[in-house]
Amino acid sequence: MTKRNAFYAQSGGVTAVINATACGLIETARRHRDRIGKVYAGRNGILGALREELIDTGKESPAAIRALRHTPGGAFGSARYKLKGLEESRPEYQRLIEVFRAHDIGYFFYNGGNDSQDTAYKLSQLGEKMGYPLTCIGIPKTVDNDLPITDTCPGFGSAAKYVAVSIREAGYDVASMAETSTRVFILEVMGRHAGWIAAATGLASAAAGDAPHIILFPEIVFDEAAFLARVNKTVMQYGHCVIAVSEGIKHPDGRFLSESAARDAFGHAQLGGVAPHLAQLIKDRLDLKHHWAVADYLQRAARHIASKTDVEQAYAVGKAAVELALQGHNAVMPTIVRKSDRPYRWTIGVAPLAKVANVEKKMPRHFISRDGFHITAACRRYLQPLIAGEDYPPFTNGLPHYVRLKNLAVAKKLKTTFDVKK
Amino acid sequence: MTKRNAFYAQSGGVTAVINATACGLIETARRHRDRIGKVYAGRNGILGALREELIDTGKESPAAIRALRHTPGGAFGSARYKLKGLEESRPEYQRLIEVFRAHDIGYFFYNGGNDSQDTAYKLSQLGEKMGYPLTCIGIPKTVDNDLPITDTCPGFGSAAKYVAVSIREAGYDVASMAETSTRVFILEVMGRHAGWIAAATGLASAAAGDAPHIILFPEIVFDEAAFLARVNKTVMQYGHCVIAVSEGIKHPDGRFLSESAARDAFGHAQLGGVAPHLAQLIKDRLDLKHHWAVADYLQRAARHIASKTDVEQAYAVGKAAVELALQGHNAVMPTIVRKSDRPYRWTIGVAPLAKVANVEKKMPRHFISRDGFHITAACRRYLQPLIAGEDYPPFTNGLPHYVRLKNLAVAKKLKTTFDVKK
Repeated sequence: MTKRNAFYAQSGGVTAVINATACGLIETARRHRDRIGKVYAGRNGILGALREELIDTGKESPAAIRALRHTPGGAFGSARYKLKGLEESRPEYQRLIEVFRAHDIGYFFYNGGNDSQDTAYKLSQLGEKMGYPLTCIGIPKTVDNDLPITDTCPGFGSAAKYVAVSIREAGYDVASMAETSTRVFILEVMGRHAGWIAAATGLASAAAGDAPHIILFPEIVFDEAAFLARVNKTVMQYGHCVIAVSEGIKHPDGRFLSESAARDAFGHAQLGGVAPHLAQLIKDRLDLKHHWAVADYLQRAARHIASKTDVEQAYAVGKAAVELALQGHNAVMPTIVRKSDRPYRWTIGVAPLAKVANVEKKMPRHFISRDGFHITAACRRYLQPLIAGEDYPPFTNGLPHYVRLKNLAVAKKLKTTFDVKK
Repeated sequence: MTKRNAFYAQSGGVTAVINATACGLIETARRHRDRIGKVYAGRNGILGALREELIDTGKESPAAIRALRHTPGGAFGSARYKLKGLEESRPEYQRLIEVFRAHDIGYFFYNGGNDSQDTAYKLSQLGEKMGYPLTCIGIPKTVDNDLPITDTCPGFGSAAKYVAVSIREAGYDVASMAETSTRVFILEVMGRHAGWIAAATGLASAAAGDAPHIILFPEIVFDEAAFLARVNKTVMQYGHCVIAVSEGIKHPDGRFLSESAARDAFGHAQLGGVAPHLAQLIKDRLDLKHHWAVADYLQRAARHIASKTDVEQAYAVGKAAVELALQGHNAVMPTIVRKSDRPYRWTIGVAPLAKVANVEKKMPRHFISRDGFHITAACRRYLQPLIAGEDYPPFTNGLPHYVRLKNLAVAKKLKTTFDVKK
């Protein structure tokens, strides 16, 4: 077989472990130098391909590549840039083929969520049509955990562990202060459409009375009266109430809670923050002292408290992507296949991109308790293994030691440029 | 010497390591059973003494007491309850002596910040006046790091480490997304009057371009124009800008930024949150995409990423409190004495409560860079050792395993009750 180069790009919101996937992919490719020549990475994801801004990962030492395994963020830069249908976004798809041809790229690895799997799928179709042989492999990544077929998405387990640890710790804090101070604590977590991250906070409550006492999911329409009654009941019973809320919860009329209400001095709608909105509601209606936190990027960047399972799976899908390509697969995505819950056993499977692209995995209703305020035993059984194990990064002077790559540019070969519409 | 009982209470906002102090105190007292009988703890801090709600720590196993070393929050409950002058709060002080007399308490250990040291001091004076022999020892605790004489306050180092780790991680995230998405990230940290915690985020920036790029201190009056110019310049230079902001920053007219501007649909001032306020400002004036996080209690409860130095010092002051009492000291507080910066060497000292009570340690101006937006080398030298070392708690099923004590009540001996004004 001929030796061809590979292109790898990170896409969409980054995670604590997307670089572990890059590590698995590059380390594995380096073990197959007979088949894979250079491994190029896109500077800022797919933009790097469109602009012919390629990074030569071959210039990075084995130690630097190894350190990707414990470094959060996207080491080559990621991009939020959606390619649409083959007709609508034809110039982009053709440009990709043009750049790949110029650099003899025979393997396209795209590390992202739903949209990215769709792009990888379309590109594989176009390569075929244009007579350009291109192996397209999607690699799962998203803290949202909403890709189908795979048991979970690398990135989710670590975000899940972060929010579960954080709400347990905040719960211990609030419980000690409630007699004279804060009675209600609200932690806002990510999840605009699916409540997977919010659900993970539920793992922290092992016994009755443990935080969180209430979880608000985007899947459940917000019922203000029922919510306030539950807060009040919890404070009566336990002296305090800890709430996890997904950023995506909605009013019965479909508006996000975070869009409602607050306006600043200039009359602009106040940005984001469903936690402060709920806090105000609790103050106005129940007159309880409260505090609130918004974890935002901290939850998806917190490599210091990554799930070991998640790190291992992130690495494994990167490794598997290369192996699938070398085995002759095309237009597929490696998946995590759950073999058993306890002990958690998993292996790598493979799914056709055609079945992954644009399909969103929702939280099943039976993972949410009947009253809509917590998770069920089935949900715990599913989530628990995903946060298992610790995988601490090395520390220097009290801080995690994360790598910054050299990210050296590959010389351009094309005379043409491409204007990316951002 | 006669054997007498001891009373220990946690006061004010709890920390990731205040229980490590309780652990040091109780373990040390247990080694001196010839001199110290029971160790009682106040249920919900000083309220437990006023209400005669004492907890018998003797009912807890050695393993449970040991586990306090790695458990955040306040295991016996803490309280925000300030006793004023001896005249103004005479009923409270007298009640304390009454309860102590009833339970033969000869040692009073009060674990808190400035106010608590003042209370311990006043109580020592009253004991003398009333002919009730009482040894009063204050024990330092506060994430605010604002107690005088001591090199640092247990609790601060762990909060400092948490914010430094968090902003480094968020910095890696934002740097990878900036080309097509978030350009500016804002992390709000605690510190209403002193910028110690905000300053600690500065430890994350080891090289030029590292996050945080801008730190806003309560000690520096907020200059909107200078701030916006700096944000803009940073985005021009590095493509993104990461900002740490202390909750206590103020307008030139003295108002907190967090008080200004936003009102909700009911016309109420929006609660807290200087981060969303700055985010709005950046959007309005610079039109840059941004995200923001508010760490709130997470930063003071994050035992999972506690500073080893902080845990050791927290334990040491608890141990020293008992030893000082047994050596005959009264109306004193154990302190941390810094012997050298690199390597960091420290020992335990002793300060008279008269010199500690109500004195606030501010950030020296020379710890803040001339332009007011970052920390100096002197500040780094001071802060660096305080976040050094990791001290991970044990984990079970992916979550830190924290202890909940039995907290069994001691039978009341008094017929009288005391009405606590909250």
